Amino acid sequence: MDVLVPFAADDPKTRLSEVLSAAERKQFSRSMLEDVLDGLWAVDADPTVLSTAPIDIDGDAAVVVDDRSLSEAVNDRLDPPQAVVVADLPLATAETFRRLFDSAVDADVAVAPGLGGGTNCLVVDHPEFRVDYHGASIRDHRTIADEVGADLTAIDSFRLAVDIDTPADLSEVLLHAEGRTREFLEAAGFELTIRDGRVSVAR
Amino acid sequence: MDVLVPFAADDPKTRLSEVLSAAERKQFSRSMLEDVLDGLWAVDADPTVLSTAPIDIDGDAAVVVDDRSLSEAVNDRLDPPQAVVVADLPLATAETFRRLFDSAVDADVAVAPGLGGGTNCLVVDHPEFRVDYHGASIRDHRTIADEVGADLTAIDSFRLAVDIDTPADLSEVLLHAEGRTREFLEAAGFELTIRDGRVSVAR
Repeated sequence: MDVLVPFAADDPKTRLSEVLSAAERKQFSRSMLEDVLDGLWAVDADPTVLSTAPIDIDGDAAVVVDDRSLSEAVNDRLDPPQAVVVADLPLATAETFRRLFDSAVDADVAVAPGLGGGTNCLVVDHPEFRVDYHGASIRDHRTIADEVGADLTAIDSFRLAVDIDTPADLSEVLLHAEGRTREFLEAAGFELTIRDGRVSVAR
Repeated sequence: MDVLVPFAADDPKTRLSEVLSAAERKQFSRSMLEDVLDGLWAVDADPTVLSTAPIDIDGDAAVVVDDRSLSEAVNDRLDPPQAVVVADLPLATAETFRRLFDSAVDADVAVAPGLGGGTNCLVVDHPEFRVDYHGASIRDHRTIADEVGADLTAIDSFRLAVDIDTPADLSEVLLHAEGRTREFLEAAGFELTIRDGRVSVAR
């Protein structure tokens, strides 16, 4: 399966600015990207990083650079069957991606919803489907599938739903992830904290 | 499968106080409970509501009252094979519960992680396992399973991970749920809003 992995190379993850420096945010987002690539390679998928600026990647990932909006850059390259997987899913594993691709076999479009209305993964096998990542994209992708007559299925996955944007999200990495992103956070001195029964992280 | 469904009857969901009155929070939490019971009945599970105070429930749910801490009340009634499912999972469906119980067949303990370190569902088939819901309970339940020599498996489910505690969580109900909880929110005038690309709710 060809997989586009969109990646924001410049000033990534600004909502983490209160806990990570600009240089650390770059390393952190790179770790998440590499975790996603590792998971995709492990199920013999063929990822291409769609980056907003040139980057070097460990391993053999192809990189294409396009600084237009995410939706424009993806739509310009949609060539079904094709998947689009966001780069900030450090909880995703090879098994998760296998479930995603299996669930897509009988559907024109398979989606993995993200928390907060996003669409963290798409598997498209319909010639007229187009992406629209602005706003509550999971709702818009359902509408677009309806409009072009494409059957849509959703995969029910916690690991594909948790994208990492805020300091609160970091606790999910420490609780559930195993890869480079978790290693990065542990090396940077992050640990779980519990106050008034609520779980958070501290450095 | 016998299923305990813990339910906080008095002053529920205080973190929703800024958007729902005390009376509405009672109705809202009752709607979530009834959605969970409907999903469990649909897969022929046998739920018992473990309530902190007497309540009347639509349908035939058994209710037992215990005002001790959640962990004490559950541990006192653990009689494997038995499940414990929290009452605030309005995204859960019959299909989700079927996956949960299927995943538990070959394990001593099956867990569905909740966002923020919780344990939203447990299926226990080991005589020595005990629950501990305080703090990062998913981590503690892994440790307890290790200590008593119980095999633990985790089900990867977005619908079982999203428990509803805060106003931000309500958007997940409007985006993904179908039952009484969604109807309650829509009747109360809630709708999705999108500002700066972020999804929220307004009334």
